[in-house]
Amino acid sequence: MTTFLHVSSSARKHNSISRALAKEFTNQWHAKFPTDKFIHRDIGSAPPNFISEEWIAAVFTLEEKRTDKQNSLLTLSDMLIKEITESDIILISTPMYNYGMPASLKAWFDQVIRVNKTFTLDLDRGDFPLEPTLSGKTLVLLSACGEFGFDVGGVREEMNHLGPHIRTASKYLGVDEYYEVRIEYQEFGDQRHARSIENAYSTISKVIKQIAGKK
Amino acid sequence: MTTFLHVSSSARKHNSISRALAKEFTNQWHAKFPTDKFIHRDIGSAPPNFISEEWIAAVFTLEEKRTDKQNSLLTLSDMLIKEITESDIILISTPMYNYGMPASLKAWFDQVIRVNKTFTLDLDRGDFPLEPTLSGKTLVLLSACGEFGFDVGGVREEMNHLGPHIRTASKYLGVDEYYEVRIEYQEFGDQRHARSIENAYSTISKVIKQIAGKK
Repeated sequence: MTTFLHVSSSARKHNSISRALAKEFTNQWHAKFPTDKFIHRDIGSAPPNFISEEWIAAVFTLEEKRTDKQNSLLTLSDMLIKEITESDIILISTPMYNYGMPASLKAWFDQVIRVNKTFTLDLDRGDFPLEPTLSGKTLVLLSACGEFGFDVGGVREEMNHLGPHIRTASKYLGVDEYYEVRIEYQEFGDQRHARSIENAYSTISKVIKQIAGKK
Repeated sequence: MTTFLHVSSSARKHNSISRALAKEFTNQWHAKFPTDKFIHRDIGSAPPNFISEEWIAAVFTLEEKRTDKQNSLLTLSDMLIKEITESDIILISTPMYNYGMPASLKAWFDQVIRVNKTFTLDLDRGDFPLEPTLSGKTLVLLSACGEFGFDVGGVREEMNHLGPHIRTASKYLGVDEYYEVRIEYQEFGDQRHARSIENAYSTISKVIKQIAGKK
């Protein structure tokens, strides 16, 4: 059985292109594998807390020395990390806001990338002291953006801090396989947008086939 | 008179390297120009709200048609944008969290980059329909990160979604001149970190000289 963690971060509950794309993905997957499990973490509707000075101090305190207050500060982080640990595939559906993640999605990453939980830090490893403790996970990013040309070689490649940032950060959640399906041209609302939606929907079937082939 | 908007986004109030660097900057500037004005927006201590579906709807409603509730949803955004409009120089001091902005800083950007306020959207402009309404501003980014090699050509260049992202986004706040002073190697706490701090402190004097020369 495959377990998915679906993280949706659009602030929009209705008329969200990224949420609709995720619905298509989960519907297609369910049709193929009806017993697989989806955990849904809707951070667009309920964003995680920002990390605080006290949160950082709690994280750097040895587990057995943490106060009750420190433990309660980490409850949300513990729960969000548990959802990742239990999952084989992380499905993130998100709009691009101001050329990067919505703040709510960044707040989720800041809660879940955690020393001694999802990565270890050992200076004996030399110049690359961080290593993820989890592994073998796949990330599927379903994104929507107003403009276009964010691919490698595109006119806005240099402005794209959504997919490349998520890819970098997700290494520390044990992700070693990465897919992105993107809808572009939303602000233009023209034929190119319609084609981009069409392409994304048909790419989803291909991505599902690829991932399912490795099950 | 030059007006600075200092945005500080470290979750740490004590022992924050980026806050200390900003203090050095403001002290040096004050020594040169004692009557210049600094507005301090401490988003590390008090992060702005995440934008919501209702916030987006309010932003896209014509000003004269907004309800009282919509106006009150935009109060914070209005205030934060006013601080930018009044400033000649935006000084952002921030740590790198998970290879990008702290979520609190992204929440600030999501509140202040706003259609018909800091940029206009006009499809008659063709493939580049967005244009900032503000101009002539300088951004000074003072950053601190645990690892190293985030510069162009560095071993972690591809992982750097802090400075390049801020640079991309700040165009829509009227920024057309950009400086970054970065302290690296924090996690290593070794000689390289000490040297990096030293370099940053001496670079600050040079940046101040450059900016002051254009006053």
